[in-house]
Amino acid sequence: MKFLVRVMPKADVLDPQGEAVGKALRKLAFSSLTSVRVGKSIEIDIQEPDARLAEAKVKTMADKLLCNANVETYSIQAL
Amino acid sequence: MKFLVRVMPKADVLDPQGEAVGKALRKLAFSSLTSVRVGKSIEIDIQEPDARLAEAKVKTMADKLLCNANVETYSIQAL
Repeated sequence: MKFLVRVMPKADVLDPQGEAVGKALRKLAFSSLTSVRVGKSIEIDIQEPDARLAEAKVKTMADKLLCNANVETYSIQAL
Repeated sequence: MKFLVRVMPKADVLDPQGEAVGKALRKLAFSSLTSVRVGKSIEIDIQEPDARLAEAKVKTMADKLLCNANVETYSIQAL
């Protein structure tokens, strides 16, 4: 089963990478830009026939390793 | 309007970050893992009332700056 874990910086956390991308885009004349935030997109393929168990495993992976809960949030989506 | 641009390394391109994350997860006893690939997740907020035009602008951003077409692919999703 394939899952997508999307890890984003929390709304109240500074995102220097997003600001840099936003600046670069505005220089390319995209003046209508309001905000840009950059996070990680992690595709995980797992051998587990039980969909609910597979998703639980991916959630544990996100909690333990993929996401720093102090500054990031994540969402999981089955692909 | 808010869009999500997901930039992933192409399937035939080496992804050292994904391999490192995969190794770390296997060390945490997630042995059922088949593969991990790590890409970027970019949230773009744009002031543009016309949805089609807004999406076209985000597509141009992805082509011009966000995605390196040699080694990456992207997908756009309205949020």
